[in-house]
Amino acid sequence: MENRNKIIDCTIRDGGLVNNWDFSVEFVQDLYNGLSEAGVEYMEIGYKNSARLLNATEPNPWRFLDDKFLKEIIPEKKFTKLSALVDIGRVDPNDILPREESILDMIRVACYIREVDKGLELVQMFHDLGYETSLNIMALSSVPERQLIEAFEMVKESPVDVVYIVDSFGSLDPADIEHQVKKFQTMLPNKQLGVHTHNNMQLAFANTLTAMRNGVTYLDASVYGMGRAAGNCNTELLVSYIQKSSYELKPVLGIIEKHMLAMREKWEWGYIIPYMISGSLNEHPRVAMAYRNSDDRDKFVQFYDNVTSPEASLAPSTR
Amino acid sequence: MENRNKIIDCTIRDGGLVNNWDFSVEFVQDLYNGLSEAGVEYMEIGYKNSARLLNATEPNPWRFLDDKFLKEIIPEKKFTKLSALVDIGRVDPNDILPREESILDMIRVACYIREVDKGLELVQMFHDLGYETSLNIMALSSVPERQLIEAFEMVKESPVDVVYIVDSFGSLDPADIEHQVKKFQTMLPNKQLGVHTHNNMQLAFANTLTAMRNGVTYLDASVYGMGRAAGNCNTELLVSYIQKSSYELKPVLGIIEKHMLAMREKWEWGYIIPYMISGSLNEHPRVAMAYRNSDDRDKFVQFYDNVTSPEASLAPSTR
Repeated sequence: MENRNKIIDCTIRDGGLVNNWDFSVEFVQDLYNGLSEAGVEYMEIGYKNSARLLNATEPNPWRFLDDKFLKEIIPEKKFTKLSALVDIGRVDPNDILPREESILDMIRVACYIREVDKGLELVQMFHDLGYETSLNIMALSSVPERQLIEAFEMVKESPVDVVYIVDSFGSLDPADIEHQVKKFQTMLPNKQLGVHTHNNMQLAFANTLTAMRNGVTYLDASVYGMGRAAGNCNTELLVSYIQKSSYELKPVLGIIEKHMLAMREKWEWGYIIPYMISGSLNEHPRVAMAYRNSDDRDKFVQFYDNVTSPEASLAPSTR
Repeated sequence: MENRNKIIDCTIRDGGLVNNWDFSVEFVQDLYNGLSEAGVEYMEIGYKNSARLLNATEPNPWRFLDDKFLKEIIPEKKFTKLSALVDIGRVDPNDILPREESILDMIRVACYIREVDKGLELVQMFHDLGYETSLNIMALSSVPERQLIEAFEMVKESPVDVVYIVDSFGSLDPADIEHQVKKFQTMLPNKQLGVHTHNNMQLAFANTLTAMRNGVTYLDASVYGMGRAAGNCNTELLVSYIQKSSYELKPVLGIIEKHMLAMREKWEWGYIIPYMISGSLNEHPRVAMAYRNSDDRDKFVQFYDNVTSPEASLAPSTR
């Protein structure tokens, strides 16, 4: 049977949450060419949110993707398709060209469970413009069952191609993933499923494998795991592991050797104790990220006391 | 039901393969006290091999454990039991005191499949001296089924308490582990099982969880993953994850904060690309370790070419 798995490399998009998208054009081009040679099916090249809606004062080409700029830096599409992520309330529909005029192939919509209706409106619009679409429901580990059932009733009727299981906090284990996949399959039998993991407890790759074995076909990853806080499932691990004749590991190794080691010296992501703690507590990593930017960054016992004390006042649940 | 899982912390023993056992007495004492406070059941405090048999010219207290020295540095036993590992042909039976005269509780015997008969002779001797015993069959991923069946016929008749599944090369995935556990359980129904994993493909923790869910009760780990090459399953992840009221994460965090960050700066272990490659190829990490000590240490593409070329001449299969 043909291997239907697809890797979506999120190095630029999720990695940008580490370094405020401080990626050189050369790096993005090398990454695109390397992923194409490696046979990786998709590259998420950033967010297509609106600088105007976010009141951004600085240019940020990978956060506010622009089709004209993208065509300049990628004058010729190769094997790998391109995707972009948008957030509810942050994307301006007027910014989205019809697919035949755009270099993008897929637009993915990230939303929390309470915004699924708005997410599906965006999906419908992008679908009508010709794009492949996905709905990425974030913070799944905190969603009550009943809310998920209600949301799925809407999702079923949508033209969305892929529905994602997103372990935003890196708090799920393989048994949790298997449970979620079976639930999604039962309630959304006509949809393809995707998985997006975080590595807080060193389970990102194992969780992705568990999802794959249970029938999930869209697998998010990042080269050398670069992604917010503990980072994501590593693209090189998937390319090396999945039995698919079109995958080649060497181009991914080339990207790591040429770029990622130096980037990891400059910016921090991966298995770091405060992220392990936030994952094990099923908390958003924002408190741990702030801690890593303070003088107390390596005071792990104090951090644990702070976040587990009965008076722990975590930052308000904003994005 | 009582949680029967036991963690065996191998930081000193397997971590010593990283730094030639260059551990201070203060560190070993802090580790012992911390693991006791954390409720970790065992600490493997080193190898009990013979300096004479290994023609060692330098003293190395954690490689050549001596009961008198151990009693000096641990004058009072706390919660955590102590274990030592021995290798076939490297241990001198005259060095082993009866258990009631020793500070050690358990002696574990590491062997390759072809040496199981010799391993079981040692086990019998240590058992007769009063110790808890385990047999750790290394390089399991390369053992032909028939050889394992023959070995198990001997193991069944032995008084050994625990038989280990050892993923020496970090090449097994959770499905492999589940398969091995079921095989071991079928063939050795009267033995407790243990698991020792390596983190080459970031699967050490996931593999350990899989083993645990399938009934394995002795779980090897190291604080901050410190162990040869890619290191082991992280003790802090097991202590945090396993639902056992006696486990406390904070003392393990304290050890990491006080010691492990600085040690990781000085010595290298963990998820490093040449180890990922050797794991995915089911190879001993020795070639990758030598490469990491050369000027070419970060030339990942060249390393991959070297070890996958048809002419690849790997180092001879010595220990």
